[in-house]
Amino acid sequence: MRADSPRTAVVIGCGTTGTSVALALTAAGVDVALIDEDPRATAEAVAIGAGAAWTARRPPADLVVVATPPSEVVDTLYSAQSRGLGNVYTDTAGTKEIVSAEAELRGCDLKGYVPGHPLAGPDAPGPDAADAGRFAGRPWVLCPYETTPDWALGTVAALVELCGADRLDLAPHVHDRIVAELSHGPHLVAAALSTRFADSSSAFLGLAGQGLRDAVRTAGGDPWLWSDVLAHNAGPVADVLERISDQLAGAAAILREGDDSAPLELALTLEEGRRGEAALRQAGDLRTTRDARTGRRV
Amino acid sequence: MRADSPRTAVVIGCGTTGTSVALALTAAGVDVALIDEDPRATAEAVAIGAGAAWTARRPPADLVVVATPPSEVVDTLYSAQSRGLGNVYTDTAGTKEIVSAEAELRGCDLKGYVPGHPLAGPDAPGPDAADAGRFAGRPWVLCPYETTPDWALGTVAALVELCGADRLDLAPHVHDRIVAELSHGPHLVAAALSTRFADSSSAFLGLAGQGLRDAVRTAGGDPWLWSDVLAHNAGPVADVLERISDQLAGAAAILREGDDSAPLELALTLEEGRRGEAALRQAGDLRTTRDARTGRRV
Repeated sequence: MRADSPRTAVVIGCGTTGTSVALALTAAGVDVALIDEDPRATAEAVAIGAGAAWTARRPPADLVVVATPPSEVVDTLYSAQSRGLGNVYTDTAGTKEIVSAEAELRGCDLKGYVPGHPLAGPDAPGPDAADAGRFAGRPWVLCPYETTPDWALGTVAALVELCGADRLDLAPHVHDRIVAELSHGPHLVAAALSTRFADSSSAFLGLAGQGLRDAVRTAGGDPWLWSDVLAHNAGPVADVLERISDQLAGAAAILREGDDSAPLELALTLEEGRRGEAALRQAGDLRTTRDARTGRRV
Repeated sequence: MRADSPRTAVVIGCGTTGTSVALALTAAGVDVALIDEDPRATAEAVAIGAGAAWTARRPPADLVVVATPPSEVVDTLYSAQSRGLGNVYTDTAGTKEIVSAEAELRGCDLKGYVPGHPLAGPDAPGPDAADAGRFAGRPWVLCPYETTPDWALGTVAALVELCGADRLDLAPHVHDRIVAELSHGPHLVAAALSTRFADSSSAFLGLAGQGLRDAVRTAGGDPWLWSDVLAHNAGPVADVLERISDQLAGAAAILREGDDSAPLELALTLEEGRRGEAALRQAGDLRTTRDARTGRRV
């Protein structure tokens, strides 16, 4: 264990992410205290061994992880710092530019706060889906401020290591553009694709193949959590949606036109899509191969 | 075996679908002859046990299966009927309204032709992906003409049964709307989503999760085959694409507007998407459960 590894931690927010972080830290021997505004969520996380319920008698923890939805991160951070819950703070919100800027504007103690985002796959909400191995072999983005001291960054880097994840430092706006392309935009596309099926008969839906079910699976995520994430990454997500909307409108126009050149024009788009799918699959295979070599779970 | 089961068959087109049909028929004891304009494709299908290469010395077969891309079906059917290759004909093209109407206009013998479409999942093209069990437990749509005689329909229904598929009779335009919603539209959405990644770095793409790779997997299909299919189902596919394009543009506008109501407005769309995803998944589970009970492979 590295010297700056936390020995005590507080996790605020017992959703899938927070509970998974708590499970991973507990498994690594860290003494974890749990807080959630919903006492049932805390109790469920305690029941599956994620840690103990936090009490006011605890001394400040080495590390506090704020695992709330993006719109609640800064208020929660400010309040936790005011109450002196810990020495170093991080969060796990899926957007970073607004969160980082708001923390600064709100007057949070930036010396002790490193914004972060573990890029684990989309899953059902709630602690049932929590898993100590959720972050193993996955990227975990940190967005330190220019002024972040080494001791704070070291503690949060140790958290990433204890969770088995790969640390990747990015500027907040770069992070936000990346997740807009790889996660937030595609999430809304999956939702748009599946709204059509909300009131369809099972006889009709039973004709669908596995490809379609796989294509819309991420749309099963918590609508409230996701709408919060999307609204916090509005510009980059809108860019992605407008591009895809234009592409689909363009393909529809080619089909409506009905020229003899339609198959050729469509094939050019499909060929680019095929190349993109192959590139994405190969990048995933690379990661899987590397993780198999290092014995990490993907 | 039912009395109208074919004892001899010709399969024209040794792609994934044709070769899979040939493998299933051969496995059921049918004497299968294979034709492909590319002699290598025929040789590969013969090599994996799908049947023998067709020769002009063969008497007319009980059944001829035309497994070419949609735009070649009618010419192939007309030519096969003119040469007297068999007694009953069907095809496997993914669009049915244009194919059915063109066969009539072209003067094909409609008494002996039953348009069909096995709804197997999307896969890589070519005989490598061929599999005798490809259609087991999956729907297989037939679009008989009002004038189709029982003897022709019976032989094609026997083909569906020999392949282990579930026969479903639909009007051609109903079939085309269904596949536009469940397959053709979603295919172009996956392609639009993945074009962005065609020239991206593997470092960037390695940050993607399994959800995105699954969402775009169908975009890996053969661009030429798919552009042919899409152009043959232009109206219904354009309807689907325009609807999704409008939804994405609407979501982008909500994000650009940046009102406080944005999360609520987005959550309503996401909730409808979540319901659609759940309905689609449950319909798939129903099918899987039923197939497990009847011992069919899905």
